[in-house]
Amino acid sequence: MSATTQLQAPISDFDIRALAGQFFADLRQATADRIGVLRPSYGPGEQKAMELVCRLAESYGLATSWDPAANLVIALEGREPKLPCVVCGSHLDAVPQGGNYDGSAGVVAGLLCLARMQAEGVVPPRTVKVLALRGEESAWFGKPSLGSSALFGQLSEDDLNLTNPVTGRTLSACMREYGADVDRIARREKLVEPGSIAAYFELHIEQGPVMVARALPVTIVTGIRGNIRHRSVRCIGEAGHSGAVPRWLRRDAVFAAADLISRLDEHWRVLLERGLDLVITTGIISTNPAEHAMSRIPGEVEFSFEVRSQSLETLEAFYHLMRTECRNIASARKVEFHFDRRIDSAPARMNGALVERLQALARGLPMPVETIPSGAGHDAAIFSNVGIPAAMIFIRNENGSHNPREAMDLDDFLKGTELLYHALLESR
Amino acid sequence: MSATTQLQAPISDFDIRALAGQFFADLRQATADRIGVLRPSYGPGEQKAMELVCRLAESYGLATSWDPAANLVIALEGREPKLPCVVCGSHLDAVPQGGNYDGSAGVVAGLLCLARMQAEGVVPPRTVKVLALRGEESAWFGKPSLGSSALFGQLSEDDLNLTNPVTGRTLSACMREYGADVDRIARREKLVEPGSIAAYFELHIEQGPVMVARALPVTIVTGIRGNIRHRSVRCIGEAGHSGAVPRWLRRDAVFAAADLISRLDEHWRVLLERGLDLVITTGIISTNPAEHAMSRIPGEVEFSFEVRSQSLETLEAFYHLMRTECRNIASARKVEFHFDRRIDSAPARMNGALVERLQALARGLPMPVETIPSGAGHDAAIFSNVGIPAAMIFIRNENGSHNPREAMDLDDFLKGTELLYHALLESR
Repeated sequence: MSATTQLQAPISDFDIRALAGQFFADLRQATADRIGVLRPSYGPGEQKAMELVCRLAESYGLATSWDPAANLVIALEGREPKLPCVVCGSHLDAVPQGGNYDGSAGVVAGLLCLARMQAEGVVPPRTVKVLALRGEESAWFGKPSLGSSALFGQLSEDDLNLTNPVTGRTLSACMREYGADVDRIARREKLVEPGSIAAYFELHIEQGPVMVARALPVTIVTGIRGNIRHRSVRCIGEAGHSGAVPRWLRRDAVFAAADLISRLDEHWRVLLERGLDLVITTGIISTNPAEHAMSRIPGEVEFSFEVRSQSLETLEAFYHLMRTECRNIASARKVEFHFDRRIDSAPARMNGALVERLQALARGLPMPVETIPSGAGHDAAIFSNVGIPAAMIFIRNENGSHNPREAMDLDDFLKGTELLYHALLESR
Repeated sequence: MSATTQLQAPISDFDIRALAGQFFADLRQATADRIGVLRPSYGPGEQKAMELVCRLAESYGLATSWDPAANLVIALEGREPKLPCVVCGSHLDAVPQGGNYDGSAGVVAGLLCLARMQAEGVVPPRTVKVLALRGEESAWFGKPSLGSSALFGQLSEDDLNLTNPVTGRTLSACMREYGADVDRIARREKLVEPGSIAAYFELHIEQGPVMVARALPVTIVTGIRGNIRHRSVRCIGEAGHSGAVPRWLRRDAVFAAADLISRLDEHWRVLLERGLDLVITTGIISTNPAEHAMSRIPGEVEFSFEVRSQSLETLEAFYHLMRTECRNIASARKVEFHFDRRIDSAPARMNGALVERLQALARGLPMPVETIPSGAGHDAAIFSNVGIPAAMIFIRNENGSHNPREAMDLDDFLKGTELLYHALLESR
């Protein structure tokens, strides 16, 4: 019997396809919003999703617990429980009006792998843990990967004081509400020893259109872009009657912000042509509804800034360029730019040996073995950057993510889950 | 005795300075908001101001009534009541967080002139009416000069269906609430015969910095800019994860809008250099708070557009240029631009004979006789464009208007009121 046929052994009574469909439907229903799903980081919708996953895990006889950052841990003991364990994880929060699969796919995949091992009486070589992480999306507190960062002492006092823009509550208050040990987190303790984890795997939907365009149901990730962000840049000019102030006396905040965004867009175009990996985004812009008017020179406009790259050097250089352009425009247009706290997420490379192992397993199943870089950030970057070998599996997904029209095909998901299952069993 | 000394006759017991200060203080107090004043067009704050002015007029023995557009009319009968009357007016609404003097100065000035005639037993040659107009500011319903337009059958069915963005109520419902005869207005009847008005005078604060810079307490207006506006232009792209969609597949609404605004700003700069009278403004811009996020490609952004000029030809040409640039950007960036209803206000020239009469009176008082064009729109344009001889007096004002820091010096106001008083008395 070849290794390949072993891997493709039938799954008997355990109907993984039906279960996957049911789990995703339950998650969607438990957290449905008027549009998409509502799962705020360290908030009630995320909590509902966590509790649902916890109940499902327990119904399959799996051990569950909550770590000191209030993430859910589902464990299946291996043949050598004293060896560093193998972790697969992803997050259960979602952006506002988000889709059902961004994050949850990785948690459901891990849960299905452990339930399948349990159902088939397969004992993995090392203990395998599924981590259902909290707070990966930056949409709520401005900083991403809160649940994984907390595990490794990487949340600063400033981070813990970040607020949810809807409720105004601080991250530390929200963490405490769901049982996190905020005192230890604030002391920046390592709540998990990196050395206690042999490998971190994360399955996630692709959040862009590349795999659809290239007809790849599953890919293996080589690296994860980092980013530098400001949730709020305020451009301050001077309000006035639009008809009555001559151009040379105008201090128009909207013209200044439009000028800045147009310049950054042009820099981006040129730098891409030079071959740099770079993405810039202003996802939020707004004049102040309490004082703006059609016939009033806008005295203030607020907007967000984000730059992403796989290169730390490119991130820093573009950030510097942006600040320089702000100074140029401030001087030319008699406005000021005020920045809130800069938030950094470091880029990460995936572990070469794990990537090769996933490629070998994919070849054996068989399925495509293409690799791809991740444009979006992931918890895997946090694990990788504390020295844990990390790897990611991407699942094809139509219509992008961060919107309710995400569309992951269950067949693609099951292919990726199959690859994850074997990766967990092969981690000796 | 020369004409000049006659004009400068003492005012006896009637302390116009104390009264002016008191009237403005009362108006501010009656309509104070957390910031500035709150006097929405055909809304409760405007109504409070109207009622206060009505009570003040009656306390000086002046006749008051409400016209069919719910504007307040204060009248003092002249020696020849059958001749067309002389009207002086302005408005009592204000932009959100507006200042105390924009509009109210003209109403208070007219009221003071009539009260002074009454107090001094002076009977004017023709009947003089003060019009306290409603709904001059476009900030509430998107269209300016509603109260004066209604008088001359110039509100269309579309206009009457405009809504207040805060309450969502239609203009027709709000007009009806304050007693306007909406049926006649909807039939576009002339509620006032233009031939029944011999002259229209409007005193108003300057809304820009020119008079402060030139040290002119009072000026006489030669013409009023018109404008073309869209309260809402929606740029529609496609939302998506900021890190995961490559640049060539992006349909970014904020980049597109910034590009448009930057192009219009550059056109403006060039056209000014060619000597055209032109102002462009985007006072409002916003991504959708229900779906925007720092890490989401903005799929939609909404903004306002306004172009102002004293030339109808320049207005049309620039509007055409703007629509052309939208088509260029739509094609280059794979977005769409959706326009709400276009709202036009025609430019107006002030009556040459009235301007000259004001200049002659100013020389006699004496006070400066400089003229100035009005960058902002005014009810006087509506009267002028239906064929009524119209003229305006501007009062120096610091810090512009449409903001709570308006600062009109009472001495300047009294100089302008003195000029208005004599203009009303000299209208034979």
